[in-house]
Amino acid sequence: MSASKNGVSMKAWRFHGTNQPLTLEDVPEPRAGEGEVVVAVKAAGVCHSDVSALDDPGWMPLFSRTPMTLGHENAGVLVEVGKGMEHWKVGERVGLAPVMPDGDAIGYGKWDGGFGPRIRATDANLVRLPDEVGFDLGAMATDAGLTSYRAMVTVGGAAKGRKVGVIGLGGLGYIGARIAVLLGAEVYAAEASPETRKQADEIGLAGVAESISEFKDEDLELIVDYAGFGSTTAAAVETLAESGTLVQVGMGRLEATVGTYPIIVNQLTIKGSKSGTREDLEALYALMRSGELKPPMDLITPAMIPDALDRLRKGDVTGRLVAVYED
Amino acid sequence: MSASKNGVSMKAWRFHGTNQPLTLEDVPEPRAGEGEVVVAVKAAGVCHSDVSALDDPGWMPLFSRTPMTLGHENAGVLVEVGKGMEHWKVGERVGLAPVMPDGDAIGYGKWDGGFGPRIRATDANLVRLPDEVGFDLGAMATDAGLTSYRAMVTVGGAAKGRKVGVIGLGGLGYIGARIAVLLGAEVYAAEASPETRKQADEIGLAGVAESISEFKDEDLELIVDYAGFGSTTAAAVETLAESGTLVQVGMGRLEATVGTYPIIVNQLTIKGSKSGTREDLEALYALMRSGELKPPMDLITPAMIPDALDRLRKGDVTGRLVAVYED
Repeated sequence: MSASKNGVSMKAWRFHGTNQPLTLEDVPEPRAGEGEVVVAVKAAGVCHSDVSALDDPGWMPLFSRTPMTLGHENAGVLVEVGKGMEHWKVGERVGLAPVMPDGDAIGYGKWDGGFGPRIRATDANLVRLPDEVGFDLGAMATDAGLTSYRAMVTVGGAAKGRKVGVIGLGGLGYIGARIAVLLGAEVYAAEASPETRKQADEIGLAGVAESISEFKDEDLELIVDYAGFGSTTAAAVETLAESGTLVQVGMGRLEATVGTYPIIVNQLTIKGSKSGTREDLEALYALMRSGELKPPMDLITPAMIPDALDRLRKGDVTGRLVAVYED
Repeated sequence: MSASKNGVSMKAWRFHGTNQPLTLEDVPEPRAGEGEVVVAVKAAGVCHSDVSALDDPGWMPLFSRTPMTLGHENAGVLVEVGKGMEHWKVGERVGLAPVMPDGDAIGYGKWDGGFGPRIRATDANLVRLPDEVGFDLGAMATDAGLTSYRAMVTVGGAAKGRKVGVIGLGGLGYIGARIAVLLGAEVYAAEASPETRKQADEIGLAGVAESISEFKDEDLELIVDYAGFGSTTAAAVETLAESGTLVQVGMGRLEATVGTYPIIVNQLTIKGSKSGTREDLEALYALMRSGELKPPMDLITPAMIPDALDRLRKGDVTGRLVAVYED
C-alpha cells in the first residue's frame, strides 16, 4: 500500500472520470509493500473495456478512487520484492492475471494499471512468463487470451481428438480456435465476415462457414460462442451432438431465444464463462511456449495510448492493441 | 422373443394405430427367451405419453409393429426366468426401467407393455423393488419418478444442505421437490396454481411462491424447471446464485428467451435432462424405502385403462394414474 517516499516519480496516463481525457502526469513510483512486488511494465494491452470505463458512467462504481491509472493487460519484469515475497526474484519475467485477492482488478479500483511504467502485484495475480513468450503476447494473454482459454479449455474441456465449434473469429474467437487446434482438437468455425474467414488456414481449421449450423453433420461435442448475438446461441443449440456443451462468452446481444427441445432431448449443457484465473493464465502460458499462438497484434508506444483508445472507440482496429515500453 | 407355444392366453389392451381405440384382446402369454424374464404386472402407470401415442401420428415411427400393448410404467413379480437369467428368482419383486438395450422402450416398439398382465424384461431394465415400496409406487417411479429423480439428483446434484428451487409442483415437480427435501436440501418452489401451492407443507418446502424470482435473495444453487414455459427458464436464469445450475426438464413450450448476461457474468450452467436409467431407478427405490415419498396417485383397475386415457386427454386428472392388477 506504500507509495514512494523518496520522491522518485514516473509518468503515467491518469483517469479522472467519465468523459474526461486521460492525462499524462507525474506520479510517485510505487514501492512494494508487504506481500507485494513491483513490476516494470514491458507491455500493456489497450482494451475496449478501457473505452467503456472512459465513456460509460455505469463503470464508475468500479473505481474506488480517482485519479488512477488504467491498464489491466500487463506483462513485465520484477524490479522490487516486498516482505514475504522472497519466493520471487528481481529480474523475473511475469504476466499479471487481472483479478486481485480483494476481488478488485488491476487497472480498476485501487490497483493502478499498466498505462504507467511501474505497478504493484501480489501472489494472487503473478504468473511466471516463459522465456519463449514475448512481453507483448504475454500481456495480450492476460485478458483476451485468458478469457478465450478459460471458455475453451477450463470450462469447455477442449482436448485432443474432440470435435469443437467456434463462433466468431474476431479477437477472442481467433485465439480460442487456435488454442483448440494447438491442443489437437478438430475445429470448425463460424464467422459472418468473409474477410475474417480467410484466416481459416492460418488458424488450422478443419472447416469455416457463415453459420455454425452448416456443421450440423459433424456431431460437434463442444461449441464456444465468442460472438453472442442470440442467433448464434440458438444455432449452437440446434447444431450440437447429443450430450454436447455450449460455452457462452460473447455478449454481442444480451438475450437469446433458444429451443428447449434440443436442450432436453439431446441432454445438452450450456455454460457461461467470463475472464479467467491465475491458474488459467499459467496453463495458457505453457501452451504458448511452442510459439504457435500468434494472434494479430498492433504494437504501439505508451505515448500512443489515448490515440489507441480513440481508434477502439471508432472500431478502427484489427488485432489486439499492445503498448510496448522501451527500456 | 418366444411367444407362448402351449396356447395359454391372456387379455391385453392392444394398440392398433393413431386415432384407433385400444381393444381388449386375447393374446398368447409371453414366455422368457434367453436373457429374459417374464414379469406378472402388479401395477402399470397410465401416462400422458400414451395419449400422445394414440392421438398424434408423429409417434407412429416409434412402433415397429402393431398391434402391440402399451404401458411403460411397470412393477410386478417374476414368474419365469429364462436361460442365463438364473441370478433372478421367481417371486422376486421388481420395477422396470423403460429403456431396453436396443434403445427401444417397453410399451413401445416391439416390447409389449403393462396394459396386459405379463411382460418380458431383461437385465437392462430390471431393478429389485424393495419390500417397503408398494407396486403402485414402484410403477409410478419408473417414469414420472425416474425423470424427476434424474433431473434433481443425477444431473442437478441436489444434496443435503444445498439450496434448491423447483418450478412447477404438478406430477414431476411434486416428486422432484419431495426427493430434494428427503435428501436434506432446503427447497423453494414456484407454482402458478394457488390450489397446488397448498401442498407446500406436505412436501416440506422452505417456501412457495408464484414465481421462482421471488426467491432471488435465497442464493439458490440449483433450480429444476419441471414446467418449461420459457418464462420459467428465463426467471430461473435471473434468480440463480453465482455458479448456479438450471436443469431443464419441462417442455410446456419448446422455446425460451433468456438473458445471456447473467449466464456469462454469474457463470451459470444450464442442463437438459430427460427420462432416466436403470441406475437412477435403483437409487430412487433406495430413497423410497423410508416410505416418505408418497405423491398423489389415483388407483384404477386394468379395465378402466381406456377411461383413464380419456381423462388424461381431457386434463381431468390429479395425481398419477396407476392401474393395479388383482391377484
